[in-house]
Amino acid sequence: MKITELLNPNSIAIVGASSNRSSPGNIILRNLKKYYNIYPVNPKRDYIEGLKCYKRLEDIEDDIDWAILSLPAEKCLDAVKSCVERGVKLILIIASGFSEAGNGKLEKELKKIVEGKSRIVGPNTLGLLLPSKKLNTIFIPDIEYNGGNVAFLAQSGSLGVILVESLKKENMGISFFLGLGNRIDINENEILDFLEKDDNTKIISLYLESFFNAREFFEKSKRISVKKPIILLKAGKNNKSSRAIKSHTGRISNVSPNLLRGVIRQNGVIEANDLEDIIDFSKALLKYKKAGSRVAIITSAGGLGVISTDYISEFGELELAEFDEETVKKLKEILPPFVSCNNPVDLTSNVDNEMYVRAIEVVNECENVDMVLALIQFHPSNVDGKLVDILAERMKKIRKPVFFSVSGLDGDKVEKMKENLLVYPNIRRAMNAMNCLAYRTKWLERKEYSIIKKIKSKKEDGIFHMISETGMKIPKYFIVENENEVEGLRINFPVACKVYSDKIYHKTDAGGVVLNIKDRKELKRVIVTLKKKFNEKLIIQEMVSGIEFILGITHHEELGEIIMFGLGGVLTELNKKHSFRMLPITKEDAKEMVNELDISPLFKGYRGIRVSREDMINIILKSAEIAYNENILFEINPLIANENGIYAVDIKLNGTNTKM
Amino acid sequence: MKITELLNPNSIAIVGASSNRSSPGNIILRNLKKYYNIYPVNPKRDYIEGLKCYKRLEDIEDDIDWAILSLPAEKCLDAVKSCVERGVKLILIIASGFSEAGNGKLEKELKKIVEGKSRIVGPNTLGLLLPSKKLNTIFIPDIEYNGGNVAFLAQSGSLGVILVESLKKENMGISFFLGLGNRIDINENEILDFLEKDDNTKIISLYLESFFNAREFFEKSKRISVKKPIILLKAGKNNKSSRAIKSHTGRISNVSPNLLRGVIRQNGVIEANDLEDIIDFSKALLKYKKAGSRVAIITSAGGLGVISTDYISEFGELELAEFDEETVKKLKEILPPFVSCNNPVDLTSNVDNEMYVRAIEVVNECENVDMVLALIQFHPSNVDGKLVDILAERMKKIRKPVFFSVSGLDGDKVEKMKENLLVYPNIRRAMNAMNCLAYRTKWLERKEYSIIKKIKSKKEDGIFHMISETGMKIPKYFIVENENEVEGLRINFPVACKVYSDKIYHKTDAGGVVLNIKDRKELKRVIVTLKKKFNEKLIIQEMVSGIEFILGITHHEELGEIIMFGLGGVLTELNKKHSFRMLPITKEDAKEMVNELDISPLFKGYRGIRVSREDMINIILKSAEIAYNENILFEINPLIANENGIYAVDIKLNGTNTKM
Repeated sequence: MKITELLNPNSIAIVGASSNRSSPGNIILRNLKKYYNIYPVNPKRDYIEGLKCYKRLEDIEDDIDWAILSLPAEKCLDAVKSCVERGVKLILIIASGFSEAGNGKLEKELKKIVEGKSRIVGPNTLGLLLPSKKLNTIFIPDIEYNGGNVAFLAQSGSLGVILVESLKKENMGISFFLGLGNRIDINENEILDFLEKDDNTKIISLYLESFFNAREFFEKSKRISVKKPIILLKAGKNNKSSRAIKSHTGRISNVSPNLLRGVIRQNGVIEANDLEDIIDFSKALLKYKKAGSRVAIITSAGGLGVISTDYISEFGELELAEFDEETVKKLKEILPPFVSCNNPVDLTSNVDNEMYVRAIEVVNECENVDMVLALIQFHPSNVDGKLVDILAERMKKIRKPVFFSVSGLDGDKVEKMKENLLVYPNIRRAMNAMNCLAYRTKWLERKEYSIIKKIKSKKEDGIFHMISETGMKIPKYFIVENENEVEGLRINFPVACKVYSDKIYHKTDAGGVVLNIKDRKELKRVIVTLKKKFNEKLIIQEMVSGIEFILGITHHEELGEIIMFGLGGVLTELNKKHSFRMLPITKEDAKEMVNELDISPLFKGYRGIRVSREDMINIILKSAEIAYNENILFEINPLIANENGIYAVDIKLNGTNTKM
Repeated sequence: MKITELLNPNSIAIVGASSNRSSPGNIILRNLKKYYNIYPVNPKRDYIEGLKCYKRLEDIEDDIDWAILSLPAEKCLDAVKSCVERGVKLILIIASGFSEAGNGKLEKELKKIVEGKSRIVGPNTLGLLLPSKKLNTIFIPDIEYNGGNVAFLAQSGSLGVILVESLKKENMGISFFLGLGNRIDINENEILDFLEKDDNTKIISLYLESFFNAREFFEKSKRISVKKPIILLKAGKNNKSSRAIKSHTGRISNVSPNLLRGVIRQNGVIEANDLEDIIDFSKALLKYKKAGSRVAIITSAGGLGVISTDYISEFGELELAEFDEETVKKLKEILPPFVSCNNPVDLTSNVDNEMYVRAIEVVNECENVDMVLALIQFHPSNVDGKLVDILAERMKKIRKPVFFSVSGLDGDKVEKMKENLLVYPNIRRAMNAMNCLAYRTKWLERKEYSIIKKIKSKKEDGIFHMISETGMKIPKYFIVENENEVEGLRINFPVACKVYSDKIYHKTDAGGVVLNIKDRKELKRVIVTLKKKFNEKLIIQEMVSGIEFILGITHHEELGEIIMFGLGGVLTELNKKHSFRMLPITKEDAKEMVNELDISPLFKGYRGIRVSREDMINIILKSAEIAYNENILFEINPLIANENGIYAVDIKLNGTNTKM
C-alpha cells in the first residue's frame, strides 16, 4: 500500500506503552488517545492512562491499522512479525540501535518480514505529525504546534521539533512532519508524491543527510517544484560531517558540494543552509509567489543603506534597482532637501512616520523596482509606535513584496507588526529571503527547451565524428608507422607524438606521450624512441594553444549520468570552478553551466582570444545530447578554445583513453 | 589641542538651542544640563528649559570649552568664526549639507577658520557619547545606554544608536561613541590614540565607509590590536554601494575587497560584515582573551551536530577537535549505549540535565579541545529549566570558552542564561564568534620577524641583479643587432624575440614581441621583420613553461606601497585569487600570502611540477624588502614556476616595461 492510503488510521496499537509519563510509549499514547482508538500493549500492565492494556498484540480483537513500537531494537523483530500476522498496515519503529550503530543486519531482516505486507516508518524515527488529522506520534512531551502549510521531512527528528516551534513563533504552522529515520522502507521520495497533492501543504522542506535515491529525488523535485517550492537543507558537505552522519543516520552520501549545487539549481530546488533559512524562506514564499530581482532600499540610517547594498552583491540573485526619473521626482517631493533620491533612499533622521510610508508607496510604483527592503528605525524623534498601525493599513495596497527589518521597537510591537507584514530579525536574513524569492521566480519563469530527442546513431564513425557533430574541432593529426613517413607530411610544429594503441591505458604515465616537439628532426628522434619502446603505430598531433577547459560525462553512483564543465588543463585541480548537471540537460542548463564558470571576459575578448559563448553552450548541450542518446561516457581534457575555434585535444572514451 | 585633552569640558554652549522638544538643539540641551554648565544661544528666546538663553555667543561672560552648533549648514560659517574668537576648544557641527551634498567648498572654508585654533567634530555628525562622564550630545530622544567597554566610531550616526541599543540587550555597554560625520578635522585615527589608553575601552569597533588615511589607520591598528581587539565594519565593497556612500558621507574609498582583506589580516584587525557581527564578536572577546581553533560540539539533536560540522569548514579559522582515548572513555561512561562518543557528541533525546553538563565538563578536560559549542535543546522529557541554574553554577569551573545556542527555552530563561554564559541566537552566529576568537588568537600568537633592514644598494647592477637576489631565475637571453649573429649562439628553442628599447612602451601592442619561435630559420625571419619595423636592438629569450604567477609592487593612493601575488599568465583576470599586503611585510605575511592562494597541490607535486614553498615565500619576502629599501615598483608577469626553479619572465619596472 502506498503511503497516501495509510494516513487515515482508525485504530492504533502502542506496543511498549508505559505508565511512566516521561517515556515515549506514554507520551505518544496521551497525544493520540483523545482522537483515536488506542490499544496499549504491555504484558505488565492492565490499564495505562485509563485505557485497557493488552498483554500481547495478538490479544486485541479489533483490526489494527497502525502499530507504534516503543521497544528496544532487539525486541522489534518479534513485534514486527506479530504486526504482519495481525495485518497491521503501518509500523512505526522508534528504537535506535540499527544501521546507525553498525547493526545493518537487523534492518535487513525487518525488511524481509514486512515485504509486500506491511509498511515501516523508521527505525530510529521520532515519528509523525499530521495536524489536519490530529495525528501526533512524536514522543516529545507538550509539543505545541500550529496546523499550517509547511511540510518537513527530516533525517533528524529533533530538528522537526525545533522547526515546529520556530514556525509557530513566526505565525506559521506545519502541514506534515515525518522523522525519516533509517528509511528501511518509507522514504522522502514516496512522501513527495503525497505532499505534491496535499492541499494543506504549500511548501515542502527537507533535512537530508543522504538521499534515499538522489536521481529520483531530483526528478520528482523538477516536476513538483513548478507547483510548490521545495526547500532542501542537505547536511554533510565535507568529510568531517560525513563521519558525524555515519553515526547519526548510518548512511553517507557521495554527492559533492559542487555537484549538489548544480542539480539543485537544475531541478528548481531551493537550498537552505540551516533551519533559519527554512523559516525565513517559507515566510516569504507563503506570502508572495513571484518577484523580480531589482531591490529598492528604504532606510533612515545611511549606513544601513550602504551595508544592504553590499549584501546585494553577496546574494547572487539580487540587484539594486535604478529609479526612473518619475520616481526620483516623486521622492524629491516628500523628502527633505539635501537628501539623495537615489537607491538606497536615505530618509535621514529627519524621517517621520508618513515619510517612511510614502517612500515605500513611491518606490512600489516604480517600474524598475521588483521588491522593497524597508529598514525602519524607531529612534528618530518623529517616528513612533503608531507607524506599526499605519503600515498595517497602508501596506494592504502595495502590490510588490516588502521585506521589513526594524530597530528600536519593543518586542510586543514587533510581534504585532509580524501579524501583517514580513518582518525579519536582521538585514542579512531579510536579504536572504528576498534572494530566495528572486531565485524561485527565475525558476518559474525559465524557458525550457525540449531538446532531448534521439539522434540517428552514427556509432560506426567512431568518437571523432561524434565529437565533430557538437561543433568541436580536432587538431590536425597523422598516423605513422615509422620515422620515414614524416618527410612527406605537411606538419605545423610544435606537435605531440603519442602511442596509438588500445592496449596502453595510461599513456602519459607509461612514457608514451611526448609534447612540444619543435621540428622535424626532433620528431624523427621521438618516433624512433617510442617505436622501440612500444612497437605500436604512432599518432602525430599538432599542438593547439588557448584557454583550456575540461568537459566530461560520467556515471555517478547516486545521480546516474552527469555532465561536468570547468576550467581545465594545468589548473583543473587548482581552480575548483566546475559546473555539474545530471543528464538530460536543457539549453537553459547549458547556459547556466557556462555562467557559473564566471569567464565572461573570454566572451568579450581576452588577451587576444575571443570565444563564442553560443558555440560553447552548443558544445555542452550537444555533447550531453549525444551521450544521453548513445550511452557514451567521455572526458575531454583539455578542450582548448582559441580564436579559431574550440578543440578537443585529448579524449578519453568510456573511462579509458581513445586511440588519440 | 589633541582630542585627549578636550574630553573634559566644563562649559558647553548650544548654538541654535530650541524650545521645541523634538529638535536637536533641545534634546542635546536636556541630555547635558544635569551634568554640565550649559549656555543656550538663540536670539529669539530668553529662557530654554529653565536656563538663561543668550542672544549671541559673544554675550556669554564665562569661558566656553565646547560649542555644539544646531544650525543649518549656511549659518555655520559665522558661528564657527564666533567660536574661534571666543576661544572655544571644540566645535561639534550637526548640520548636513556639506560635501556629502556636493558642497565641499564650505567645508574648506570652515577648516581654514579653525586651523591651529579650535577643533571640529563633523559636520554631519550625530554627536558623541562618553558614559563615564555623562557626556551625551546625541540628538535622538531618550537614548538608553549602558556604560561599558565597547567603543564605536561610525561614519553613520544612526548605526551608533542601533549599536548602543543592541549592546544593552546583550548586557554590554558603550565606553565611547562618536559619529565621525564628514571628518573635516577630527577623525578615527586621532581617536584611536585616545581609545588605546582609555581604561574603560576594552574593544574598539568602527563603521567606516572610507578611511581618513588608510595607511595610518592600519599602522595604528597593528600596534593597538596587540592590546585591544579592533573590529572594523567597512562598507562600500562594490560600485553600487560606493555610489550610496557618495551621497551619505561624501567620500569613497578605492581599497578593493581583496586588498582590504589582505591589510586587515596583516594588521590584526577583525572584519565584521554587519552590526550583529560587532555585537557577537564583542560578547565573545569581552569574556575570553584567547582560544585555539579546535572545537568540540555537544548536542542532543544529531542533525544540529552535522549542520555545525558543515559550518566549521565555512569558517576558515576553526577545525573539528579529535577526541583522545581518555575523553572517549569518559564519554562512554556518561552516555547511553549506541551513542557515538566522537565529535560531534550526540546525546540523543535520552539526554537529561546532568548529561549535558557532564558532557561539557568531559570535553573541557580533553587536551585536543580548545572551545566548546553547546547546543542545548530543552524539548526532551528529562531536560528542564533547572538546567539554566545548574549550568550557571557548574560552568564557573570550566576553563575553556563555551558558546551556547539553545532552543525550546522561553525568553525570560534565555535572558537569565545570558547573564552568566555566552548565548547566541543561532548556530551560525555562535560559530562566527568562535571563528573570531580563534582568528584573534592566531594574531596574538603570531611569530613576527623583524626582517625590515636596509640592504646595500646595488642599483648599478640594474633590475636583473636585484631580481636574482630574491632567488628568482631569469630565462637565458641574448641581445643581437641583426639576424647574422644568431648563427653562433647556443639557443634552446622555442624562444621569444622582443624589441630591446626604452622608447617603445607597449611592446606587445606595438607588435614588438614575437613568441614561440620554433627554430633558427624562423628566428632569423622574425629578426629581419622587427629590425625593419623598429630599427632597434633585439633580445632573444628562451621560453619557459610551468605554472604562471604574478608578483608586483605598486603604489596605492591610500595605502602607499603594496605587494600583490597571484596566479598569473593567461588566467590572471579570470582567476581572481590575488593576495595583497602593504609594505613592509614580515615573513608571516609572506607565508599567509602563499596560503591565501590555495595552491598547496603545487608544493606536493602537481602534474610533474613541484614548487618549493620556502622558495616562493622567500621570493615574496625579499622582493618586498628590496622594493621597500630602494623605492622600486615592479611587476613580474608571468613569474613561472617549474621543476628547475622560479623564473621572472617579463618584468615591468616603475610602471613601464624594462628593456627585457
